[in-house]
Amino acid sequence: MAFFTRSAPKLTHAGALVALNAAVAKAEALGVPQNIAIVDESGNLLAFLRMDGAKLLSRETALSKAISAASHSQPTSRLQPELEVKLAIASGGRLTNLEGGMPILFGGLCVGGVGVGSGTGAQDMEVARAAIDALGADPV
Amino acid sequence: MAFFTRSAPKLTHAGALVALNAAVAKAEALGVPQNIAIVDESGNLLAFLRMDGAKLLSRETALSKAISAASHSQPTSRLQPELEVKLAIASGGRLTNLEGGMPILFGGLCVGGVGVGSGTGAQDMEVARAAIDALGADPV
Amino acid sequence: MAFFTRSAPKLTHAGALVALNAAVAKAEALGVPQNIAIVDESGNLLAFLRMDGAKLLSRETALSKAISAASHSQPTSRLQPELEVKLAIASGGRLTNLEGGMPILFGGLCVGGVGVGSGTGAQDMEVARAAIDALGADPV
Amino acid sequence: MAFFTRSAPKLTHAGALVALNAAVAKAEALGVPQNIAIVDESGNLLAFLRMDGAKLLSRETALSKAISAASHSQPTSRLQPELEVKLAIASGGRLTNLEGGMPILFGGLCVGGVGVGSGTGAQDMEVARAAIDALGADPV
Repeated sequence: MAFFTRSAPKLTHAGALVALNAAVAKAEALGVPQNIAIVDESGNLLAFLRMDGAKLLSRETALSKAISAASHSQPTSRLQPELEVKLAIASGGRLTNLEGGMPILFGGLCVGGVGVGSGTGAQDMEVARAAIDALGADPV
Repeated sequence: MAFFTRSAPKLTHAGALVALNAAVAKAEALGVPQNIAIVDESGNLLAFLRMDGAKLLSRETALSKAISAASHSQPTSRLQPELEVKLAIASGGRLTNLEGGMPILFGGLCVGGVGVGSGTGAQDMEVARAAIDALGADPV
Repeated sequence: MAFFTRSAPKLTHAGALVALNAAVAKAEALGVPQNIAIVDESGNLLAFLRMDGAKLLSRETALSKAISAASHSQPTSRLQPELEVKLAIASGGRLTNLEGGMPILFGGLCVGGVGVGSGTGAQDMEVARAAIDALGADPV
Repeated sequence: MAFFTRSAPKLTHAGALVALNAAVAKAEALGVPQNIAIVDESGNLLAFLRMDGAKLLSRETALSKAISAASHSQPTSRLQPELEVKLAIASGGRLTNLEGGMPILFGGLCVGGVGVGSGTGAQDMEVARAAIDALGADPV
């Protein structure tokens, strides 16, 4: 019986900054200001940026998307569509299937999540994907 | 690369009091007591009044309406109808598309929001509009 | 009676990223991992980074320091020493005079705050100062 | 055995506005911007104003002072000095003996409280007293 296990690799702050900058570059290319949140595999905030003109309340939705993706190791857009409201409430408001949350997977293990909010769902997802791609994380 | 920019104008407390009094006068003319909240462009409370007989819990809806309108620079009634519950939950409960929240725009820039709650949606919106009009803010 | 006034300049997200990177560089030079929070003049989060190995709970102290410095336009180390506990509690836990919070002043106007937490008070302050200096903000 | 009793008189919203305006006038005369909160006998917010330049975090201290004064039917400055921290924490952070909270008494009955925060303790108290005086409330 093992009391301790090898853990997943961890996303470094250097990696989080690279992901954040890639997301900003993509958002600028799209011409849409965004809130960008990057969390670790425990849902704790690693890095954040609110771009000029991004919607204030979308800070919380960006964070909810990042935590949801990290928690479930899935893009938020694939989480259960039919149970969303009950699950959202029962999770203390954090679980969401709004588009724009992507898990960060490395060697098949979840090391965190990226959440983006202030644009359309498609824009949010595209910016989150840019962050993942910049890390060379597993394709999702 | 600019580190600092000129921002939007700010709503003064003198302006907030004028807006508050105009909202009260309109609510009295309609014969419906209201909770009236005025926030700045960052969603922080500037002025508030609960009128005699206004519903206690509508204080929070009035505040959510004001913050939502300021956050999105839109009347709350125009925010996405189909995503409202998901967005409300993912934003920590603050984002709402209930009628009665109006952004305060000045020269095209958002300087805050007014939220009104305790009447019908139409009454709430009429009272919020009276606050905006008293400021000579941009028509919305 | 003026309803609207010209406000302080705003810190851009480009500026927030420059400040964040300068703080990271200073923390690396000191060999101490840090939580770094940058808020706007209203206390809303603009940028954040938790460095590898930084204390988890210091995320909240870093944020409290940033908000306190922005709220009072003063380094947190200069806030009233004798009233600190009473004020901290009465402000909902956010007001602190722990070292490591610096206001961001530009042309004499407060545009935000930087808060740093996970090192000693002196290290936190040195890292916060590096962020301010990188912006060319007013010396404090 | 009586199941219901006559209640205290209630502060009207007209009264709350008069108190708020008197507090603003006094703060302007003193040249110190303030956060001013007026609550009913249950501690629920009736009226609020944040003046231009008032410290952001003092919004919460002003509210705590108003609630404390209404709760204990005493100026906050007279509340127990030696137990303050334990009581503050045990009350969920709201009970404070910082100067600047005054009960609103009418015919010996407590109908609410005024709390003021952003100046010195003496300035806060003077502004709170101006609000009480404008109502013709019982001297405290």
